[in-house]
Amino acid sequence: MALAEGADKGDVKQGIAPLQQLCADDMRKVNDEIVARMQSQIPLIPQLAGHIVAAGGKRLRPLLTLASARMCGYEGERHIGLAAAVEFIHTATLLHDDVVDDSHLRRGQDTANALWGNQASVLVGDFLFARSFQLMVSDGSLRTLKILSDAAAIIAEGEVHQLITTNDTETTEGDYLSVIEGKTAALFSAACEVGAVVAERTEAEQQALARFGKGLGIAFQLVDDVLDYSAQQERLGKTVGDDFREGKITLPVVLAFERADAEEKAFWRRCLEDMEQREGDLPHAMQLLARHDCLNDALERARGYGREAREAIGVFPDGPIKQALIDALDFSIERAY
Amino acid sequence: MALAEGADKGDVKQGIAPLQQLCADDMRKVNDEIVARMQSQIPLIPQLAGHIVAAGGKRLRPLLTLASARMCGYEGERHIGLAAAVEFIHTATLLHDDVVDDSHLRRGQDTANALWGNQASVLVGDFLFARSFQLMVSDGSLRTLKILSDAAAIIAEGEVHQLITTNDTETTEGDYLSVIEGKTAALFSAACEVGAVVAERTEAEQQALARFGKGLGIAFQLVDDVLDYSAQQERLGKTVGDDFREGKITLPVVLAFERADAEEKAFWRRCLEDMEQREGDLPHAMQLLARHDCLNDALERARGYGREAREAIGVFPDGPIKQALIDALDFSIERAY
Repeated sequence: MALAEGADKGDVKQGIAPLQQLCADDMRKVNDEIVARMQSQIPLIPQLAGHIVAAGGKRLRPLLTLASARMCGYEGERHIGLAAAVEFIHTATLLHDDVVDDSHLRRGQDTANALWGNQASVLVGDFLFARSFQLMVSDGSLRTLKILSDAAAIIAEGEVHQLITTNDTETTEGDYLSVIEGKTAALFSAACEVGAVVAERTEAEQQALARFGKGLGIAFQLVDDVLDYSAQQERLGKTVGDDFREGKITLPVVLAFERADAEEKAFWRRCLEDMEQREGDLPHAMQLLARHDCLNDALERARGYGREAREAIGVFPDGPIKQALIDALDFSIERAY
Repeated sequence: MALAEGADKGDVKQGIAPLQQLCADDMRKVNDEIVARMQSQIPLIPQLAGHIVAAGGKRLRPLLTLASARMCGYEGERHIGLAAAVEFIHTATLLHDDVVDDSHLRRGQDTANALWGNQASVLVGDFLFARSFQLMVSDGSLRTLKILSDAAAIIAEGEVHQLITTNDTETTEGDYLSVIEGKTAALFSAACEVGAVVAERTEAEQQALARFGKGLGIAFQLVDDVLDYSAQQERLGKTVGDDFREGKITLPVVLAFERADAEEKAFWRRCLEDMEQREGDLPHAMQLLARHDCLNDALERARGYGREAREAIGVFPDGPIKQALIDALDFSIERAY
């Protein structure tokens, strides 16, 4: 697979490091805020929350809030608390996702539900969700509260939609897009938009950053879903086939099912609807995806959303933060290479 | 058991009917708002939400918001949306509670998780929680947003605290009170307080209504927990012993364990810590509670919180709504009779 044909290798190599470097001071404050706000007299809450926050990876979403605000020339401190609120919404969603998916590993570590049980994960997720709203309230802007509460509702709708499409091989590309717009892109979009809002930029600029975040979020999730079937991913020692084992219908499968002959359709139905999976099924699924060029086509879609994101951010003058956001966008797509 | 010795039977008989009658027009609007706001393009959401909302019982919490606002002389419409937000927070909590408790029946009906699975219940709960914040945002008051987001965080803390005390016979009365202040009284209190806030009453009056709601909520939950072991309840054909079967440590058990001899302590530990329950254990538990007068003593505590609530509401002039709130308070306590 030559997935990165169109990519500028120089940018791709940078990944999200420039963004992290430019926002390093702010991100330290966000981390302090996160630790401060997850405290509670009930010790299990900071224990469990600390586990998921520590395992939370790159902090891409709060990074988007920080970078958007700074790119818009913001010089205050409001973006710190809002970035923490964004991360809390994301963390609450991860806790509930792992319960819903019955996942026991996340990034190679035991999940919170594996360690403390589903009950604690559900309730601490609720706590973090409430905390995120307390953070927004103390920020004191109804505009950011609206953006993030709308995002929270859309995320939940996307998650329910994903639950419905699970095990349903008749899922369309439209259904799939609607799922990932909800479960992933809505928060990316809101995270970027609030950056422009705290900087008091024009409505057009707020919307431009919202569109950038949405395009980035869709592309990011599309690539994630491709990587779940990628031999390259397997070579890097990362888990492959989680979506397959859970019967999740992602774009590669939607395309493969559309292009399948009768025998192949029966294979997908057995594996993903009836959930009767045997040894050798995942490699066979990966062969079918390759035969019908489904991963490349899914990545082509990701590149399209990446172009939309890049276009949206075009209204802002060039500068180091804008370039770092574009680097992060390119990396989100071309990491599949 | 002569549980209602101190009660004014005339009031008690009224129950919450006067409150419901006085707020009937407003409550119709709240119900319309609830139905309108639980809609979504994802049909499972209104289906599942509609099930729990329909099974939701007396709508006591939104009723408190409506009555508080009206008692404070409020003549606008803001209390409608806020009452719906209060009910959504409650409904989201019920959905997650039933998952956490693995309950399959609520008020004699199948729970949402029994019908649609735990996954859908978790996610639709998240959706309703987000919707409640959208409702508050469209109300547009940071003050009510603060009251209700603080309550949401305290509820989640109370639920986690309850999870920790489950199966722990060393739970103290203080632990128990802290659990019910969180899981029940915080939302009762917030529901009342926002009524005074929309009516723009003084801080002292807002706090008086918050205290009324808190006292009512604690008394309400104490009585609920007594009824779970009440022979009277059993005669009415309602389920008895849910808390016992789930290993929940409520005040009657806290008192019984404190007063237990070695053999009785061993019994409670076997049933509630080791969860080794046999036929005849629940009747034996009820005998022990009677022997040590634990239900009456728990009800005496409830009456104490009821008196505090009644005292708090004393700052308001007498009138039909105030009387109806007091009737509801008396009923909450004396329904144990």
